[in-house]
Amino acid sequence: MFIGAQVSLYPMTSDFVPVILSGLQALEPYKKDLRIETDDISTLMVGSPDPLFDALRDFFARAAKEPAHVTMHCTVSRGCPGEPDDPNCRCDILAVGQSLPLEVRQAKAQEAVAQAASAGVEIDVQFSLYVLGQDRHMDEIYGCIAFLKSSGTFLKSKNFCTRLRGDAGAVFETLRQAFLRFGPAQGHVTLDLTASANSPSRR
Amino acid sequence: MFIGAQVSLYPMTSDFVPVILSGLQALEPYKKDLRIETDDISTLMVGSPDPLFDALRDFFARAAKEPAHVTMHCTVSRGCPGEPDDPNCRCDILAVGQSLPLEVRQAKAQEAVAQAASAGVEIDVQFSLYVLGQDRHMDEIYGCIAFLKSSGTFLKSKNFCTRLRGDAGAVFETLRQAFLRFGPAQGHVTLDLTASANSPSRR
Repeated sequence: MFIGAQVSLYPMTSDFVPVILSGLQALEPYKKDLRIETDDISTLMVGSPDPLFDALRDFFARAAKEPAHVTMHCTVSRGCPGEPDDPNCRCDILAVGQSLPLEVRQAKAQEAVAQAASAGVEIDVQFSLYVLGQDRHMDEIYGCIAFLKSSGTFLKSKNFCTRLRGDAGAVFETLRQAFLRFGPAQGHVTLDLTASANSPSRR
Repeated sequence: MFIGAQVSLYPMTSDFVPVILSGLQALEPYKKDLRIETDDISTLMVGSPDPLFDALRDFFARAAKEPAHVTMHCTVSRGCPGEPDDPNCRCDILAVGQSLPLEVRQAKAQEAVAQAASAGVEIDVQFSLYVLGQDRHMDEIYGCIAFLKSSGTFLKSKNFCTRLRGDAGAVFETLRQAFLRFGPAQGHVTLDLTASANSPSRR
């Protein structure tokens, strides 16, 4: 199993470099658990979903606490058949497998979101979950959407994607649960995820 | 068939609103062929791939000609089983179907990129193509990657995605061909796409 993300932070201010660098500082505690490599388009983070989603949350929450409008885009992937197996990406939730019935997985996902610690900043998220390499991929998607609607972070459905809103702690836990609890445990699942904070459209 | 995109433009300047509005003006000629709706996170564009990818190209090329660093993210989708059928999304390439052998589709895709008109601005792109609801999705992905490598816009492979670089005309034609020529004609195919211009990391 190979798990990771390509992550880009976009601060809508002429002084965008310090905001990006401050976000990157929030990644420091995760450097022992994640492989992190930055180029001119995005930052690659490879590792298990516990540090990975915590790092995405802290990276964005730090930038969102600045006054500028800021967005983050992440392409998150697990189980891509084109990537090598990486022992650093081990994940207990996936190891137990998706053998649990859908309603049990939905309940466990809800519980995890309810227990998420507050990050102290409200954010908006728009994302799509893709379950690949499976004929009946929409069953898992609809199961995931039912969880999202009960998560407490659901805002609305849009064409091609779902909108979440809430504290960054609950929102990123919702995303982690959506990513891990739905679709086959050993399958190829991806997220196309955009986070936004301080948008002038909402002021 | 339902085809469209959720599109967001991110200018890294404090004066970001005029850049977004100027990009939106480049969409004017496409308003007769595309349904376009904007909210606080993204702009929905629904319609057939000819005006859709032309609109994405012109939207981004206009913004890229300004001096500021600017990026665009698009979630592009065709054939999502959760969306209604829309006669406005009709597409001749998909109507002919994916019955053509892979190497013929690759050659037609190459030809289309070679004939693309110049947009007069160089851009970077990073994207992932997802073929959903099919057991053997990686065969089409590998076929698409072979086309990309011969497209003249290929820069490099990265974890989870592919990098393109070149004139916006050739790059968006490469993306349209990747989106249409690979994966089943009636299947669910998506693109997770980031375009970038004027990055200070490249100066």
